[in-house]
Amino acid sequence: MSHSANTALGDGQIPVFDSIAAFREWREELRRQGKTVGFVPTMGALHAGHLGLVKNARKECDAVVVSIFVNPAQFAPHEDLDQYPRSFDSDYASLVESKSCAAILLPKVSEMYPAGITLDRAQQQGTFVEVQGLSHQMEGIPRPHFFRGVATVVTKLFNIVQPDRAFFGQKDAQQCVVVRAMIRDLLLPIRMRALPTAREQDGLAMSSRNRYLTPEMRNIATLLYRAISAAKEVIQTGATNEREEILKPAYAIIEEVTKQVKDQGLPFEVRLDYLSLVDVATLGEIEVLGKEQAAILSGAVYVGTTRLIDNVLINAEEL
Amino acid sequence: MSHSANTALGDGQIPVFDSIAAFREWREELRRQGKTVGFVPTMGALHAGHLGLVKNARKECDAVVVSIFVNPAQFAPHEDLDQYPRSFDSDYASLVESKSCAAILLPKVSEMYPAGITLDRAQQQGTFVEVQGLSHQMEGIPRPHFFRGVATVVTKLFNIVQPDRAFFGQKDAQQCVVVRAMIRDLLLPIRMRALPTAREQDGLAMSSRNRYLTPEMRNIATLLYRAISAAKEVIQTGATNEREEILKPAYAIIEEVTKQVKDQGLPFEVRLDYLSLVDVATLGEIEVLGKEQAAILSGAVYVGTTRLIDNVLINAEEL
Repeated sequence: MSHSANTALGDGQIPVFDSIAAFREWREELRRQGKTVGFVPTMGALHAGHLGLVKNARKECDAVVVSIFVNPAQFAPHEDLDQYPRSFDSDYASLVESKSCAAILLPKVSEMYPAGITLDRAQQQGTFVEVQGLSHQMEGIPRPHFFRGVATVVTKLFNIVQPDRAFFGQKDAQQCVVVRAMIRDLLLPIRMRALPTAREQDGLAMSSRNRYLTPEMRNIATLLYRAISAAKEVIQTGATNEREEILKPAYAIIEEVTKQVKDQGLPFEVRLDYLSLVDVATLGEIEVLGKEQAAILSGAVYVGTTRLIDNVLINAEEL
Repeated sequence: MSHSANTALGDGQIPVFDSIAAFREWREELRRQGKTVGFVPTMGALHAGHLGLVKNARKECDAVVVSIFVNPAQFAPHEDLDQYPRSFDSDYASLVESKSCAAILLPKVSEMYPAGITLDRAQQQGTFVEVQGLSHQMEGIPRPHFFRGVATVVTKLFNIVQPDRAFFGQKDAQQCVVVRAMIRDLLLPIRMRALPTAREQDGLAMSSRNRYLTPEMRNIATLLYRAISAAKEVIQTGATNEREEILKPAYAIIEEVTKQVKDQGLPFEVRLDYLSLVDVATLGEIEVLGKEQAAILSGAVYVGTTRLIDNVLINAEEL
C-alpha cells in the first residue's frame, strides 16, 4: 500500500491520505488556488463503473478526490463486511491509469467514527444522519439501517472533502435519491450528479459484488437486467400503464431462469427478492403510472448467496 | 423588520439575509478575503447572554454571523413554539449597538426544511441528525425529540454559515455536549466554544423565557441557582463524594421555596423537575464522584408554567 500523503502531484502518482488532517491541508491549498473539486465516494474494489465516474468528474471539475472506505455502519451483523472485497493496490493502479484522480482519501475507521462503531444497532453511539420517508422501502426493507449508514458516512465524507460536486452511480438508485434529498435538506453547498449505470457487454450492471459469482452464475446473471428492460419495453409500447401488466414479463423472465437453473441441477439457487416500480420523488410504489411520471423500475435477485440489484429509469434522464 | 440584504457593511448597519443564496454570496466574499467567521446561532429574543457570546466571538474572529431562527423541530406539539418570544426589531438594535455583528441570518422555515416540517414526529419527513447516547437523558427525558431537533438545525446552519468557530452558552449544558459530539462525529471543520452562563445580578441565569415570569415569580426564580450552588459548595468542601449527600442541600432549598410560595398563597406553583449530577463526557448519572471527575450539576424547575434550567460545572472550565 503506497501512502504518499503530502507528496506533490504529477508523475502519474496520486497522494493517498489516511489522515484527515493532512487531507484538509491539501484541500485548503486547492481552495486557495480557486480550483473546483469533484468527489467520488467508493468502498474500493473499483471497476469500470467507478472509473467512469472518476473520468466524468474530471471533465466537470479541476481536481477529483476518490475516497475508499468500507463503511461498517451500512452493514448488518449478518452481512459481508469482513468478506467485502478489498484490493487497494489494484484500485490505486486503476486510478493512476485513469489520469483523472488528484487524491485518494483512505480514512481510518477510528477517525471516521470517533465514538466507535459496532454493527449492533442497539449499542451504537454517536451521531447518525437519517433521511426519513426514503430509507425504509425497497432496499431499506431487508436492510433497515442501510441508508442511515449511507447518509451518515456520506455526510462525514462531504465534511472532509468539501466537494463542489459529488458523483454517484445510478445503479444504486435509492442511494442517489436519498443522498440528493440529504444534500437538499441539510443545505449542503454541493451539486449532486448521478451518472448512468456502467454495464458489461451483455448488460450486467457492474458491481464489486460480481466478483462473488462463479462462471455458471455469471452466465445467468443478466436475468434481472433483462427482466426490468422487458418491463420498460412494455411501458414504451404504450400498451398499458398498470403495474401488474408492466411487471408481468419481468416476473416471467425471472421465473424462467429460476426454473432453468433448478432443472439443470446447477449448484446454486436463483431467488427473486423484489421487483419495484416507484415514483422518483417519493419512492412510493406506483399502481398506475402517470403519463409523464418519472419512475424507477428496479429489483433485487439472489444468485446463490450474492444479491444483485439493478434499475432503469422511466421518463427521467438522471436521478 | 429591516431586510437590507446585500447592503455593504458599515455605518452601524448590519445586512440581514433571509435568502440562503444571498447569504452564501456574502460568505464567499469573506472567504476570498481570507477572513475568519464566528457564528452565534440563536432563536432571537436576545438578552445580555447572547450579546456576550457575540462580543466574545468578535474577539476571536474577523466577522461574526448571528442567526435568528425559531426552530420548529425542537418543539413538541404541546410546547411554546407559537408563544416563543419574537422581537426582531429590538434584537436588531441590540446587535447594532454591540458593534460586533457582521451579518444576521434570518432564514425562512421553508428554506430550512425543504421537505416541510410538522411537529408531529410520526409524520416528519426529510433528513434528521441524532447524537445517540447523549440525547435521551436529562433534558431529553421530558423532551425526547428536542436534541434531534437541535442537532438537525445546527447542522443545517453550520452548512450555510460555514463558520470557523461556533459559540454556545454553557446554560444549555446538554446542548453544548451534544453539539460538541456532533462536530467531532460528523468531522465538521469547526471549533466549538461554550462560554460561561450570563447571569442577572442576583444569579438568575439569563434566558429568553425569563420574560414569562411575573415579578412575584422573578423574586424567587433564583432558587435553582442557589440550589445547585449549594451542592457545588458541598463538593468543594471535600466533605463527601456521594451523590445523595451532595444533592441534599439543593433539594432542601427547592423544598423550602416551594413550601414558602404555597404558604404565602402566591398565585403560582413551584415544582422541581429534576436535579442531576452527570459525567461531562457520557452524561451518565454519577453515584460517587471521582476525585477529578469533570461533571455537570444541573436541574430544571417549573415556576408557574415556565420551565427554568441551570447548571454549574465541577472540575471543568468549559463544556
